[in-house]
Amino acid sequence: MTYDYLQLSKTNGQPLYLQLYEQLKNAAQRGSLRPGQKLPSIRRLSEDLGLSRTTIESAYQQLCVEGYIEARPQRGYFVLTGGGKRSTRPPATVQPILQKLPRYNFGTDAVDSSCADLKSWRRHIREVLNRPQALVSYGEHQGELPLREALCDYSYGARGVICSADQIVIGAGTQPLLYVLCGLMQGKIGAVAIEEPGFPQAEQIFADCGIEVLRLPGDRSGMQPESLRQSGARVAYVTPSSREGNGSPIPLLRRQELLNWAAETGSLLIEDDYNGELRYRARPIPAMQGMAADSSVVYLGSFSKLLLPSVRVGYMVLPQRLLPLYLARAPHYNQTASKVEQLALADYVKSGQLERQLRRLRKVYAQKSSALMHLLQNAFGKYAQLRLQETPLCITIRFQNSPSPARLAELAAAHDVRVRPGPNGQVTLGFAGIPLEDIAPGVQALQAAWKLPEFCVSG
Amino acid sequence: MTYDYLQLSKTNGQPLYLQLYEQLKNAAQRGSLRPGQKLPSIRRLSEDLGLSRTTIESAYQQLCVEGYIEARPQRGYFVLTGGGKRSTRPPATVQPILQKLPRYNFGTDAVDSSCADLKSWRRHIREVLNRPQALVSYGEHQGELPLREALCDYSYGARGVICSADQIVIGAGTQPLLYVLCGLMQGKIGAVAIEEPGFPQAEQIFADCGIEVLRLPGDRSGMQPESLRQSGARVAYVTPSSREGNGSPIPLLRRQELLNWAAETGSLLIEDDYNGELRYRARPIPAMQGMAADSSVVYLGSFSKLLLPSVRVGYMVLPQRLLPLYLARAPHYNQTASKVEQLALADYVKSGQLERQLRRLRKVYAQKSSALMHLLQNAFGKYAQLRLQETPLCITIRFQNSPSPARLAELAAAHDVRVRPGPNGQVTLGFAGIPLEDIAPGVQALQAAWKLPEFCVSG
Repeated sequence: MTYDYLQLSKTNGQPLYLQLYEQLKNAAQRGSLRPGQKLPSIRRLSEDLGLSRTTIESAYQQLCVEGYIEARPQRGYFVLTGGGKRSTRPPATVQPILQKLPRYNFGTDAVDSSCADLKSWRRHIREVLNRPQALVSYGEHQGELPLREALCDYSYGARGVICSADQIVIGAGTQPLLYVLCGLMQGKIGAVAIEEPGFPQAEQIFADCGIEVLRLPGDRSGMQPESLRQSGARVAYVTPSSREGNGSPIPLLRRQELLNWAAETGSLLIEDDYNGELRYRARPIPAMQGMAADSSVVYLGSFSKLLLPSVRVGYMVLPQRLLPLYLARAPHYNQTASKVEQLALADYVKSGQLERQLRRLRKVYAQKSSALMHLLQNAFGKYAQLRLQETPLCITIRFQNSPSPARLAELAAAHDVRVRPGPNGQVTLGFAGIPLEDIAPGVQALQAAWKLPEFCVSG
Repeated sequence: MTYDYLQLSKTNGQPLYLQLYEQLKNAAQRGSLRPGQKLPSIRRLSEDLGLSRTTIESAYQQLCVEGYIEARPQRGYFVLTGGGKRSTRPPATVQPILQKLPRYNFGTDAVDSSCADLKSWRRHIREVLNRPQALVSYGEHQGELPLREALCDYSYGARGVICSADQIVIGAGTQPLLYVLCGLMQGKIGAVAIEEPGFPQAEQIFADCGIEVLRLPGDRSGMQPESLRQSGARVAYVTPSSREGNGSPIPLLRRQELLNWAAETGSLLIEDDYNGELRYRARPIPAMQGMAADSSVVYLGSFSKLLLPSVRVGYMVLPQRLLPLYLARAPHYNQTASKVEQLALADYVKSGQLERQLRRLRKVYAQKSSALMHLLQNAFGKYAQLRLQETPLCITIRFQNSPSPARLAELAAAHDVRVRPGPNGQVTLGFAGIPLEDIAPGVQALQAAWKLPEFCVSG
């Protein structure tokens, strides 16, 4: 530990050794110095502080006498007890995402490491680490050009997004990009419309930027242009591929209607294409961005489930009409995504590995989703409604008559199975993270946890 | 390239091969398919689209006949010409930070690779890459716990910051953290006060969040509590260690006065401690956060100049009174900093390497700043005012009588020297990025570029 916090004054009249003694004593009492911690040697501290060794020695001596520190022969000085702790509050912190991993993890926040392309990802990262010039300089504000070029081709091929590299802005996931977008819209829009039941991760950003969110009820096909018109909103946030709490994507016809609304009213559609490429039961529907003839769609893409959840890189495709505004402001935004990860991703995309990984994952997820659906149908089909949420990579289960989702999750946890309680009496089982061979025993454990049919009758 | 954007309908009455032909033709005309690009093989596309090989072959045949693509024997089909380009606009993009590196780079946006601790940083990254479990899962919302614990000790030792790990929030630099902070303050504050000439990177974030910024003139010691009181602001943004356009940090007495203002008025001080530890001429002044008895300071720390500019990891220490509010909202914020870089940094800090690097850099910067100041004094001292900006790691030079800073930078560029034009007739020479041995020839080149004294007299 450095000791830069020590501030001694040669002019305040108090002997230096006494000032040093008091500051170290306070640090020990406050808990900033912890029991067992080693103090710097007398020589090192005298050099660092520009004081004589005698001064340091006198202070240490006094602290030894009073029992704050002790000298251990050949080893140096150590803090004994502070008589206090750094913090007397209970450790209040956000619930860690993964505290202890259960045996069968149907959570939605990880990917199966056997399906992850760890080996080639590591190779690309290592390769970038060998470019000193890239490491010792800041990144481009807008994101590294090789990555923007690679994403330009990839997003066209995989999603039908039509853009040039200068329309692409990179960021550490969707949220930092939304902040930038909110900045571009600041003061120019009223509220942002979003389909019920909403999407907290996006709504949080709008709220932070002081932008009102209007939750509009949708029908089977999604948000309705008519209710958008009535709401007066000039911006709509849509997730056409992955609708929360509703398995089906927005169909082509509704997409066109929404685009018409945007064109007619001069409004903006924010298309969050989370996992849009991860479809495996039918061919994916291309992004709305590519269907829009005009400048009315902002496209948001990300890779967490496609590549690795730990890699925080997302991208935003700005329509032409927002570009001049963005370019004027870009120099004031520091890039948030890791430069090394950006350059590694550029190589990974350009070499075609992302597309190979996408093909591989589609097969894996088709297999896993069928297996899980089949097993759940057999186990709970009589008493429950099951629904595959294709792009969110999960199956939701709703019993006709049962305790709350939270209680179901608790019962599962007691049998070492992790499921996620959801809204509307639903429980969510993700299949991206669990290995294929664990799905059958996992469902068996669930059956034991949710002893049926008694459970449903008595519940 | 995947071809997921192709959407063929078996029910719309148009032959499939014709639909395919038209969609590929459009892509080529629009420039989405580029000259020289390889098309997927007939076999691959027929599998992907679930169509017969004959269908694909007919479409390709037609495209060949019309000159959009050509068949190269043994190699496959390639796009010939689209008759168009992807984009006809000139490539409008943000000015790249480093276009061509000049021979003598006195820019402020890089560090000298000979001083960077690349070797051990690479080692730590590689070590983290070998932990599959860390890679395949999302990170903690608040930031990885090992890093928060390490920063808790480091920030106390190096800056006198007093906190526990649960008060620390990690983010991809200062800006994403400021967004989160603005969210916490949303609706509860009027304006944020900031000392003239302001700080665009922070002001941009406040503006995005719809928070007004009041620029207050400061005196030699910084912002004055009296003008803060008069402004009615309840939040002040200060950079006590690194004042833009003013070499000197806020002295202890003024810091105490600002803390008194915050305590008396219940206001908040945002302490941006950019490069606070990088002092080498005298011992650093500890952070205000540690001087505050109450809960009135939010501390912001970062590492770009200390570690590597390419690594985007910063941290924010929240005061107790903001913690409950943050914890309630934390689950809605995805972490922005790279998980791998966070874990590598945790190891780097815990092993004491960051502190060793800090000691090393202080010596290097002391040496470089003295050398540069000495040489500039000899070269331009008679006609110019020179000022060392210690923590921003640069020297500003202002001639008594000369062309604009932009013109000075141009003249320097013509001699292969990069300097940064600044406000108030100043030119900035950074010394973090230039190797020590290049400083003398660099100043010589500047002398040739700014032929003095004729220049000053005629300017």
